[in-house]
Amino acid sequence: MVIGHTNKNRKKVDSLNTNKQGRQSFRLPQMPIITAWASVAGKKESEGPLAHEFDVTSTDTLFGQKTWEQAEKQMQKIALDTLLKKAGVARQQIGLVFSGDLLNQCIGSSFSLRNTGLPHLGLYGACSTMAESLLLSAMTVGGGFSDRVVALTSSHFASSERQYRFPLGYGGQRTPTAQWTVTGSGAALVCSAGKGPRIASCTIGTVTDLGIQDANNMGAAMAPAAYATIRAHFDDLNTAPEDFDLIVTGDLGQLGKEMLLELAKRDGLSLGGKLTDCGTLVFDRDKQDVHAGGSGCGCSAITLCGHLLNRLNSGKLKKILFCGTGALLSPTSTQQGLPIPGVCHAVCIHGGEN
Amino acid sequence: MVIGHTNKNRKKVDSLNTNKQGRQSFRLPQMPIITAWASVAGKKESEGPLAHEFDVTSTDTLFGQKTWEQAEKQMQKIALDTLLKKAGVARQQIGLVFSGDLLNQCIGSSFSLRNTGLPHLGLYGACSTMAESLLLSAMTVGGGFSDRVVALTSSHFASSERQYRFPLGYGGQRTPTAQWTVTGSGAALVCSAGKGPRIASCTIGTVTDLGIQDANNMGAAMAPAAYATIRAHFDDLNTAPEDFDLIVTGDLGQLGKEMLLELAKRDGLSLGGKLTDCGTLVFDRDKQDVHAGGSGCGCSAITLCGHLLNRLNSGKLKKILFCGTGALLSPTSTQQGLPIPGVCHAVCIHGGEN
Repeated sequence: MVIGHTNKNRKKVDSLNTNKQGRQSFRLPQMPIITAWASVAGKKESEGPLAHEFDVTSTDTLFGQKTWEQAEKQMQKIALDTLLKKAGVARQQIGLVFSGDLLNQCIGSSFSLRNTGLPHLGLYGACSTMAESLLLSAMTVGGGFSDRVVALTSSHFASSERQYRFPLGYGGQRTPTAQWTVTGSGAALVCSAGKGPRIASCTIGTVTDLGIQDANNMGAAMAPAAYATIRAHFDDLNTAPEDFDLIVTGDLGQLGKEMLLELAKRDGLSLGGKLTDCGTLVFDRDKQDVHAGGSGCGCSAITLCGHLLNRLNSGKLKKILFCGTGALLSPTSTQQGLPIPGVCHAVCIHGGEN
Repeated sequence: MVIGHTNKNRKKVDSLNTNKQGRQSFRLPQMPIITAWASVAGKKESEGPLAHEFDVTSTDTLFGQKTWEQAEKQMQKIALDTLLKKAGVARQQIGLVFSGDLLNQCIGSSFSLRNTGLPHLGLYGACSTMAESLLLSAMTVGGGFSDRVVALTSSHFASSERQYRFPLGYGGQRTPTAQWTVTGSGAALVCSAGKGPRIASCTIGTVTDLGIQDANNMGAAMAPAAYATIRAHFDDLNTAPEDFDLIVTGDLGQLGKEMLLELAKRDGLSLGGKLTDCGTLVFDRDKQDVHAGGSGCGCSAITLCGHLLNRLNSGKLKKILFCGTGALLSPTSTQQGLPIPGVCHAVCIHGGEN
């Protein structure tokens, strides 16, 4: 599956050797490079503070399709096509696409890749999918299996609302802790050679659950997982908040972010000043009526594949810890009275050398 | 994430270098070893021809739980615990678990790993998940990221029926092309050292769709994807059906298997005599009233993690191509009149040296 195998001088992966700590993280001495990225955003996202960072924006929330689910598929198609165009790479040169989404059976991802001839491994990591796909792309390139791998995901406000909560036509009142699912898709191209931000290390999350059962307060459900992974990253790789310009969680929103700060503080770790959250960056909470902030796979995807990678590439950011957060619930598990397990995967990205 | 990193003398991955063919497959010169496997099966499966090959069987289809979904979670828990016990490995020694299932938002997988402390990457590959998780485990071990990785999946007849088709209490009539979702869970431990069957190479599938729209004929929907991947494996790695003792598809069932033979024949390739399908192995179609055969992630999982790995380990099988097949539909996509995309991932496994 490798196109132009350039692997001969590849350094060994610097995995961690421990029977105690450290098994969640690995370093990539020959850092895979994010040579291109692309973002597609819906109407509300295009009216927010990051509007100027997206490659494609649309005032048509259906993206020319008949259904919300097909709109989501279409966003992934556009994100992938835009990515390949920006990278100047043909579809045939891509070794593998890691993708997933929130729709039941991930139909946004499988239908977007239908009959494209692209090798595909499907993921389910809920809203952590951008980080999960990026991490696996880095493993694939870092392990010498391919030279060009795509990480791709999406979410859509309307398809999520009707699947997880209520049909939009029902006009249900939203609770103050609720978040607004981002309509958008992000794609990143991870390569063994080229220029751009580089993936230095990753931390794989564990499924963590402190018993939160309120499906309208996902930030709280995910905060413990986010803290566990961030802590593991620091411990495993012997690093600390001050080594980063930013620690960016995926979609904790305002409440989840505050809870994460509190969890860290209780544990003697100060994240203050370094921590931000894509859910608080992507919308203007004062003006856009999104309650606790943005959420969904698309939230961290378009924030990373627009705002963050642009700033890493231009040198405005030197080093960030990108922490995709996911709430691993389903409407069925909630109806059965079960709590909401969370997961968080972290990817340490260095600024480009351009 | 590596436990006892033994990686220093690891050979380079022999990936394929092509701009034309071959990008779907890779070889693993230092073959990851499947040192242990475990299977958990439900009542009907325990009455079938493979009954004696399963580690755990249960006449209680709820596995002591209150709901079918929680029963599925419980099967994964039992499969994982049984695996670790058989391997003599502690939970803390596992670097990573790749798992997924058919339930919306893969709650079987996330709830089974909840608060276990096991690093987890979630997959969605429909019924191809056993092959997908095995392939990614092989990449993780082969790439030097971990020495012990678990591939895990499950399906449950009752949770699948109510999610994809009708509530069981409705008593809907099944069509002759319908398959019976296997109640079971399989787990495999992939290691960098030890004894057991070895993973020699893998082929990653593309999302393939020839326009089949009948959600009660999944075998037909998946057969084109199975053929595309098997053909890619032969072409990419310069091998042929006669090099294998068996080519085993996941859950095409009787009709899908016949369609695959026909697709191969039209393309000038004879699979006859080598091809079998887990869906036709796991049940006795004459006696068990399963129509076209077994299906579900659990179908290929318990057939592999019982019957096939036992035979590979004892030397009765020298080399097989294990081809996990998945139908990437959802009830929503079917209701919206869309066809059923299929995917198939192939893993070439050599017999053990015991």
